[in-house]
This record gives sequence, C-alpha cells and structure tokens, in this order.
Amino acid sequence: MNLVDIYFKMKKDVQYIEDELEKSIDTDVRELYQSSTHLLKAGGKRIRPVFVLLGGKWGHYDVKVLKHVAVPLELIHMASLVHDDVIDDADKRRGKDTVRMKWDNKVAMYAGDYIFARALAVASQLPNPKLHQILSNAIVEVCKGEIEQVKDLKNWDQSFRTYLRRIKRKTALLIAISCQLGAVASGASEELVRKMYWYGYNVGMAFQITDDILDFTGTEKQLGKPAGSDLLHGNITLPALYTAYHGKASGQFQEWIRQNTFWEHTDEAIRLVRQDEGIAFSQRLAERYIARAHAVLSDLPNTQAKTSLTGIANYIIDRKF
Amino acid sequence: MNLVDIYFKMKKDVQYIEDELEKSIDTDVRELYQSSTHLLKAGGKRIRPVFVLLGGKWGHYDVKVLKHVAVPLELIHMASLVHDDVIDDADKRRGKDTVRMKWDNKVAMYAGDYIFARALAVASQLPNPKLHQILSNAIVEVCKGEIEQVKDLKNWDQSFRTYLRRIKRKTALLIAISCQLGAVASGASEELVRKMYWYGYNVGMAFQITDDILDFTGTEKQLGKPAGSDLLHGNITLPALYTAYHGKASGQFQEWIRQNTFWEHTDEAIRLVRQDEGIAFSQRLAERYIARAHAVLSDLPNTQAKTSLTGIANYIIDRKF
Repeated sequence: MNLVDIYFKMKKDVQYIEDELEKSIDTDVRELYQSSTHLLKAGGKRIRPVFVLLGGKWGHYDVKVLKHVAVPLELIHMASLVHDDVIDDADKRRGKDTVRMKWDNKVAMYAGDYIFARALAVASQLPNPKLHQILSNAIVEVCKGEIEQVKDLKNWDQSFRTYLRRIKRKTALLIAISCQLGAVASGASEELVRKMYWYGYNVGMAFQITDDILDFTGTEKQLGKPAGSDLLHGNITLPALYTAYHGKASGQFQEWIRQNTFWEHTDEAIRLVRQDEGIAFSQRLAERYIARAHAVLSDLPNTQAKTSLTGIANYIIDRKF
Repeated sequence: MNLVDIYFKMKKDVQYIEDELEKSIDTDVRELYQSSTHLLKAGGKRIRPVFVLLGGKWGHYDVKVLKHVAVPLELIHMASLVHDDVIDDADKRRGKDTVRMKWDNKVAMYAGDYIFARALAVASQLPNPKLHQILSNAIVEVCKGEIEQVKDLKNWDQSFRTYLRRIKRKTALLIAISCQLGAVASGASEELVRKMYWYGYNVGMAFQITDDILDFTGTEKQLGKPAGSDLLHGNITLPALYTAYHGKASGQFQEWIRQNTFWEHTDEAIRLVRQDEGIAFSQRLAERYIARAHAVLSDLPNTQAKTSLTGIANYIIDRKF
C-alpha cells in the first residue's frame, strides 16, 4: 500500500484538519497572519496529523476530538521550522522563500512564537491533563534538541550516540507523541498507547536518518535545496560521522579536522561522503528501526489502521525525496 | 504600606516560588541551563508571582497549588524578555549582559523557546482546563503584542489607541491574568476572579505607562540604561506621541516627520519630550488607571491581601525607577 492510497482513504479527515490548521492561526494582526499562513500554504506532508488520526483508530475515533491534538502537533512542528530557518540563515524552505527571507528575522521569531502559542490554545480545548503533560514535556525536549543542534554545529567531537539523541529530540519524539496522543485522545488502552508511542519513535528515527541520507544522495531538484546542505551548514549527520571515523575517507577527514581546515573543504567532503560506506551503514540502521516498528505492530489486530501504519513505515525508507 | 513591607509579609512564599523557579529550568543541557539561569539570576521584582499569591488569598490559599501558576507566569515573562532582547539588539538588561550578548542570538532564541516550554510543563501539572485556556490565550495575545511592537517601530502613523492596545498586550494582560489565575487556582468565586482580573489590568496599564514615563525622566543610573532608550530604539511611547501631536514641540516633531528626518534627531527629540506636557499627561492617565484599580478593590472585605494590593497600586505610580 503506497502513501497516496493511505492519504486517499483518509482524505476527508486530512482535509478537515487542514481547514482547522488554517483557522487556528487566523488573526486580525495582518503581518502575523501573512507570515504565519505563508509556511502553512507551502504545504508539507502533514505526517504528524496523519499519525494522530491513525493513532486515534485504536479507541473511539472522533476527528473532532483528534483535531485538538493533530492541529497543535503540526503547528509546533511549523513553529520549530520557522525558528530553525532563523538559526540556519535559510532562504528557502520547500522551494519557497522562508519567513525570515520574505520578511525578516524579527518577524520570523515572533511568528514562530505566535504559532507555538496558538498550538497551546487549541490543545487547551481538551480537558485531559495527561495530554497536556505529554505535549508540554515533548516541547521541552524539542527545545533541548534545538539548542543541542546549535552546540553540535561544526563540532566533530561527537559520537553516533550524540547524533541519535539529537534526532530523537529533533524528530522522533514529535512523531512518537503524534501516534501516542491520537491513541490517548481516543481513549485507547494503556498498552495500545504505549505501542503507538514506540511505533512512532522507531518510524521517526528512521525518517530522520533517511532524510539525512537523502541530503547527500538526492539531487537539488528532488530536495528543493543543494545536495549536501546539512554539511554545508555545519550540521554533522550520520553518513558524514561514519565517513569521518570509520569510512574509506576517514584519513582525509581526520587530517582536515586536525588541521582545523575541514570547513574549507565541504564540497570535496560531500563528494567523499557520497562515495563512502556511511550511506549504506545509515540505510541499514534506518531499516533496523523500521523492523522494530513492524515488530511493535505485529500482534495488533489486522485493521485498516494497521495496514496504513505498516505502509507508512515501508514508505519512510523507500522514499527518494 | 510600602513595597518592602508587602514583600516582607510574604517573604517565605516568595522565596519558595523563587526556589521553584530555579528548579523549573534545571536541565542536563549545560549551555541551556547557563543561558536560562543567567536571566533568572539577574533578579527582578517577581511582581507576577506576587500578584498570583495575592490573587490566591481570596479562596483557599495554598502556595503548593499557586506555584503551578506563579512559576509559569514569571517564566513566560522571562522568555518574552529574552526574545525581546534579540529583537531590540539589546546588550544590557537589569545592568547585566543579555543572553544574546553573552552567548548569541541563536542561543537566546532557543533559550526563550525552552523557558516558554518549561512554563507550560509546570502549568500542565494543574488539572484545571479553564486555567490552561486562560494561560494559552494570554500567550497568544502577548505574541500579537510583540509583533505589533515590531510593526509600530519608528512608525508615527499611530494613535493613543494603538499605543494603549500595544501595552495591554505587552504588559497589562499578563499582570491581569496573574491576579486572575491566582484567584482561579484558589477556587475563589466568579465575581472575585473577575475583580482580580480588572484590578490587574488597571495596575498593569499604569505600570507600563509609568515605565514609559521613567524612560524619559529617569537617570541612566536609575534605569540601568541610557534615558530615552525607547525613542532611541524607535519605540514610540505615550509621552513622545503626545509631544508629536499635541505638545509645545509638535511643530518641530511634525516638521522632522514630514521631512523623514526624525530618526536623525532623537537626542534633541528626547530633550523636547522631557520638557513637554506629555509627561504630565501620561502621569494623569496612569493615575486614572490606578483610581480604577482602587475602585475595583473598594467593596472587598478589609483583609491583609486588600491592604497589599492597595499598597502595590500606589507604589506603581509613585516609584522613581
């Protein structure tokens, strides 16, 4: 089952969430409205809302309840993108100008704050305190991940573990709690809530590792930005980390690092990472996470939701962009 | 009753909140811990926690419950200061280096996000959904206020009403809901909750107007920054707005505005505002807000809390820095 089929089966509810997303950031402050909707209209796969909806299939499914979780999670993701673009001095996102590019860093910072705040206002409509605790703790972890990313920038003194902890906070956690909170909001059993969390965590880890591979192997057209952008911006991901310490080109990498000239050789470094074994190593690790996601699903009843979750897990590592 | 007496009477509980504040932003991410505690340790009057505690005196007073409101409100205020300093390119805050100065804008942005997120994590410990709604809606308004401030910067095409709406969102709202949420969390009656909100709103408006007056009339030593800083940064406040449209120096101001050279004459403009009637006009407006705050309190029983709230209202407009 491919991703289009999965979306197609849920299209009415996905569209409902899309409409609610747009309503959620409506405001009479014109500049804020324009900057906030700018990113929303650039699209995106809305993968977090889809996970919330699928997580919600394990209890009493009600899209009008689930929206109070799905909308905040997508908004929190969007807010972090707006702030990340400030940090990364990014000009383009999904092929469109970023908020900081179209307006400026100040507008981008406050637009991010605003989207963030609206996320909480939507979530506050649900009376379940457990839900708020999970959500706010996840945001804390996302923030920690963001600041770690700044600290780890251009820093070769980091291990695989540093990388994995960073992508957990940066990506996997929000996907994990998307699945989890869908289940919580639908009143699913404790065990199912836990399973949904672990399914999401594993899929999220695989998703980010695949993203980091594609950043090297994709073309500029597929990526909407130059290949090797991560390394160009000093963001050291798994394929590069492998090359630096275990790959065929590790000698060259270590020499540049020792001489403190690595960041003058990024074009050459990107070429070396592409040809090295770190790509296949990263691919295998992503596959292991996906295998774990499948294992979590294995003893669940064979429902449409299970088929969809299985399909998404497979898509995550097969995707080309 | 002066402010020191008021604080002295509550010193055990204020200290308890202070300890909880410090605990609330504790983290294993070193850079985040240092940048977040940096501002906390710079001090401040902790006026929002004090208002929460006094609001909590109208129901069942329990500082262990009230902390879940007092700590988030102070943290939200702190997070907005950290972000404001990025926007304002500010180097100093309360006589100490700002986070963006001591680290950089990136750390400041994420430290702000983190403090914000911790605020919500603390608030999520309280199971009352109404409380979350009030809190998150207030944050939305604060964000709107922040972006309006950016938009209104160096913009002479604004009225008294624009200014008042801006300071409501920027300052008065958080003080209003500090009083209100203290009352809500203590289970006070609807009427008392409403009264606390309006007391806080009026005191908050007077507080910001007084701040904006002192920015002109204070000395650099009293303010911890050069006098006239607001205008130097393009932030047009009530005394300047009065001078531009109704003051003795309005002719000179209008000429500069027409010639588009106003921002080349800020030193002279600050001198003119200081000598103009806008200062007294602003003072009278602040006094009117304080009179309304007293009116809200007038038919409440004569308790210690009432005496303290009355004392703070009087202090707000009498203070010299």
